[in-house]
Amino acid sequence: MEQASFTQRASKILKAYLPILDWGAKYNSKTFSNDLIVALIVTMMLIPQSLAYAILAGLPAEIGLYASMAPLILYAVFGTSRALAVGPVAVASLMTAAAAGKLASQGTPEYLGAAIALAMVSGLLLLAMGLLKLGFLANFLSHPVIAGFITASGIQIAAGQLGPVLGIHAEGETFLDIAVSLWHNITSTHLATAAIGIGSLIFLFWVRKGLKPLLVKAGMGAKVADIMVKIGPVIAIILTIVITAVMGLDEKGVKIVGKVPGGLPKVAMPPLDFALWMKILVPALLISIVGYVESISVALTLAAKKRQRVDPDQELIALGASNIGSAVSGGFPVTGGFARSVVNFEAGAETPAAGAFTAVGIALATLFLTPLLFFLPKATLAATIIVAVMSLVNLDGLKQTWSFSKTDFAAMLATILVTLAEGVELGLIAGVSLGIILHLYNTSRPHVAVVGQIPGTTHFRNVKRHEVVTDPEILSLRVDESLYFPNARFLEDLINDSVAANPAVRYVILECPAVNTIDFSGLESLEAINMRLKDSGIELHLSEVKGPVMDRLNRSHLPHNLTGKIHLTHFDAVSSIRAEMKNMATKEGGVA
Amino acid sequence: MEQASFTQRASKILKAYLPILDWGAKYNSKTFSNDLIVALIVTMMLIPQSLAYAILAGLPAEIGLYASMAPLILYAVFGTSRALAVGPVAVASLMTAAAAGKLASQGTPEYLGAAIALAMVSGLLLLAMGLLKLGFLANFLSHPVIAGFITASGIQIAAGQLGPVLGIHAEGETFLDIAVSLWHNITSTHLATAAIGIGSLIFLFWVRKGLKPLLVKAGMGAKVADIMVKIGPVIAIILTIVITAVMGLDEKGVKIVGKVPGGLPKVAMPPLDFALWMKILVPALLISIVGYVESISVALTLAAKKRQRVDPDQELIALGASNIGSAVSGGFPVTGGFARSVVNFEAGAETPAAGAFTAVGIALATLFLTPLLFFLPKATLAATIIVAVMSLVNLDGLKQTWSFSKTDFAAMLATILVTLAEGVELGLIAGVSLGIILHLYNTSRPHVAVVGQIPGTTHFRNVKRHEVVTDPEILSLRVDESLYFPNARFLEDLINDSVAANPAVRYVILECPAVNTIDFSGLESLEAINMRLKDSGIELHLSEVKGPVMDRLNRSHLPHNLTGKIHLTHFDAVSSIRAEMKNMATKEGGVA
Repeated sequence: MEQASFTQRASKILKAYLPILDWGAKYNSKTFSNDLIVALIVTMMLIPQSLAYAILAGLPAEIGLYASMAPLILYAVFGTSRALAVGPVAVASLMTAAAAGKLASQGTPEYLGAAIALAMVSGLLLLAMGLLKLGFLANFLSHPVIAGFITASGIQIAAGQLGPVLGIHAEGETFLDIAVSLWHNITSTHLATAAIGIGSLIFLFWVRKGLKPLLVKAGMGAKVADIMVKIGPVIAIILTIVITAVMGLDEKGVKIVGKVPGGLPKVAMPPLDFALWMKILVPALLISIVGYVESISVALTLAAKKRQRVDPDQELIALGASNIGSAVSGGFPVTGGFARSVVNFEAGAETPAAGAFTAVGIALATLFLTPLLFFLPKATLAATIIVAVMSLVNLDGLKQTWSFSKTDFAAMLATILVTLAEGVELGLIAGVSLGIILHLYNTSRPHVAVVGQIPGTTHFRNVKRHEVVTDPEILSLRVDESLYFPNARFLEDLINDSVAANPAVRYVILECPAVNTIDFSGLESLEAINMRLKDSGIELHLSEVKGPVMDRLNRSHLPHNLTGKIHLTHFDAVSSIRAEMKNMATKEGGVA
Repeated sequence: MEQASFTQRASKILKAYLPILDWGAKYNSKTFSNDLIVALIVTMMLIPQSLAYAILAGLPAEIGLYASMAPLILYAVFGTSRALAVGPVAVASLMTAAAAGKLASQGTPEYLGAAIALAMVSGLLLLAMGLLKLGFLANFLSHPVIAGFITASGIQIAAGQLGPVLGIHAEGETFLDIAVSLWHNITSTHLATAAIGIGSLIFLFWVRKGLKPLLVKAGMGAKVADIMVKIGPVIAIILTIVITAVMGLDEKGVKIVGKVPGGLPKVAMPPLDFALWMKILVPALLISIVGYVESISVALTLAAKKRQRVDPDQELIALGASNIGSAVSGGFPVTGGFARSVVNFEAGAETPAAGAFTAVGIALATLFLTPLLFFLPKATLAATIIVAVMSLVNLDGLKQTWSFSKTDFAAMLATILVTLAEGVELGLIAGVSLGIILHLYNTSRPHVAVVGQIPGTTHFRNVKRHEVVTDPEILSLRVDESLYFPNARFLEDLINDSVAANPAVRYVILECPAVNTIDFSGLESLEAINMRLKDSGIELHLSEVKGPVMDRLNRSHLPHNLTGKIHLTHFDAVSSIRAEMKNMATKEGGVA
């Protein structure tokens, strides 16, 4: 083996942690002009989203713009996906509102401070998970739980935006509260606001469903049409700004965004308020993990289309840096969003530089366009949110899960119901807990088959499914699962039952081809089974133990204490026991 | 198949829930006289233990006697083990003290009420777990965690009893607090108390180590000698009572048990204080599960010696009934104890009636012997506790776990350290959480081997371990683990990596003989992998999918959407792909 020089190794490590060194070296004027066009399109899509999600998070609109600059640039430096676009997203914004709302009222500096702290702590947690290779923590979120959570979040967000769309007061921390509040106030709907809001909704839904076929019919390519559809909200925004300004609707009670402070955010370290950080630790962790799961799945999907690599640990580092960047520039938690990343990809982003250019676009908008947003009705932003989150709601998933696995269905349904009734944090925690409990439940009762020999062969199969030969003195069990703590006691119970029910049994053989691993609980259970069978006058044998499992067993006393032997194949085990029994019978016969 | 009559079925169900109907029918005068002798021996062993564990739980001594009557009788009615003896045990008493101590001060009626409520809630939880077949919840406690917890509890209990043994004040809720308190007060050791306490300790240790050989040498059978050793504490108690009374040590500052109220406990439903019950729910659950795990393991071990059956779900019901019985007779949480059950078994208990007779023995003692306990020094009881719990401390387990599995070692060490530093509840919760996290961590990175064909055979093996043939266009992966949420993302990452690193690959085959199950997360990952590979122009094939897994896949869209096929054997898969490639090459060749 060649020994890489120090420089080579250092460069490799640097490139792993700074992917920009890799693609940056190959950057040229063609990729530059391409990335620039992409950035223009994505900027137009991001401006309304950024404003809307900031308002969804209970923050001033400009905070959404702040959160869309530094994160994009930092992701470009640290990220491994070529197309992921990082910024405020719906679910994380909702979770931010839920967490910050527990500490302060919307509109107060404390509330903004909590949102910034959430981004900071979330960033530090992601960074730590990346550096310590703890990405597996995201596995706690099973697919049905995350699907249920996102569906329920989508429903709650949409319900929460109906208030602004109708110009009525409808608040609450959970879907239930919001629904009750909507019901009570529906009669005080503000007509002018509702006209803007419902008008925007209809327009935006039409853009989604009806515009693309029209554009394609008019000769536009399908991809370009898709991109045009994605920047539909910009049109709604421009139209309603003009209508509101011209008709003076703000004086007639239509709520508008009002004065958005121009200028770039001040870069400053958020205060090191450890007491606050501890209070938001759990929500920050939940935001981090939900954000990561969403982001990595988008990144993997887009990378596959061009057969590119995505490094999950490095993605944690990149998202961590992005969130810290958001915090120090006065923003709130961000992650890789699905819609914007797809637009980025479809528009042809070739390198993460497209993201950095988008950040420049947002910065220019923040500097020069904010005065134009004065008359933007909040109802329009609410409508863009509703249309965006409708794609999150997937109740079909319930049906698919039901037909595939009842326990997965239970976890998904519980997540949806608890989220709707008790809010996002409890919903997620309930889903994760139930997911783990059901997982342990499922693995705690593994499939165990009594096996017998297929006559004339060396094969052994389940006695219930095949015509096989068995010996009354030999109980052959095939365990179709690893032996570890979730099922350790199950095997003890099962063998206690089986030998109590079959008094003739003098040998038990465990066939282990599906035992992929064995932990200390499994080992101790095997040892207890061995000792108990010994007390009952029964020998315990093992067969077909896999190499890695055998390596591990050899580090314990079991092979030494086992009353029987460990056989290479199950046929060997049964043959040698039959020979032993024959031997003993002959001896006894001789003595008699 | 014959249809059992209604009476037969009803009788079968009744017998399952009331095992007493089974053994009671066969009861005769021989088993009666046998059980009576056993009861006498166990009673003599239980009296000092009951008093000592009540004091360990921070309760008046007589509560220990109360908790040793009703539970024994109820277990005799509902239990499936012939030898298990139920009553107060060391670890549950410590946990009771920790939980009740958070709600009230020792000696107050509120403290006693909390202890009784713990028994009640614990009993209801066990009963519910039994009726709903939720015994698998006990699987959350892996062996290393329970071993670490019991060791740490033993250390903490022993340290806590050093105060009474030396006649000094040494209190605290954790081992650390107790140790600091001991250190500060060691100089105020009360000499007369220490003489009694250390004297008892030396005597009791000698009984354990030195008495049995002497008795055997004097011609006593080993089993009888064992039983004599177990009732050694009674001798220590009688001796120190006499010494204290004769020398008037109580007037010289030796703390004595004092007046123990005689008479049987009043049977009364504890107050239905739901607010209190909610407060103690978590500790009651922990006490239930730890007690159940200890109890079922003793029951299985003893049952095996006579090839008897133990029904884990019925055991939950029996322990639940026992705890409810303890609560309504004014007692605290109980479970099946190891030492007393072994004595019960070794003395020859033939039916659970022996337990019921023991209850009668304790009742007689409560009625007539309590005045004799007036001069019993608390130091003697503390010494019996220390000797009893020393057998719980097993630091060798750390060494064994270390050599077998580093993650199990980490869970065990963490449980010990957190229990010692932060107390029993946090210790147990930390251990369980870490156990589950490490379990998910381990299963999140399953063993996946790239396999190739052993030349001239139909067998495929790991390319790293065998000389095999591979095709550059075909990537064959064998996954040695079920596909479920802990490892779903791992497989996505792995395949993203593998195909990005091997640009020649046009076919991926997953060989699944060790995939024992697949959940919805695993299914969605497979679907995502399939779609992403399709985007990269690669076909995904599966081979050697097990029957139950295939049944489940057939309920999803995967077999229909799969770009490749599902093959019976891996050899079939590779052969058909090679044939396809050859075909295509010929066609292309023909065209060229």
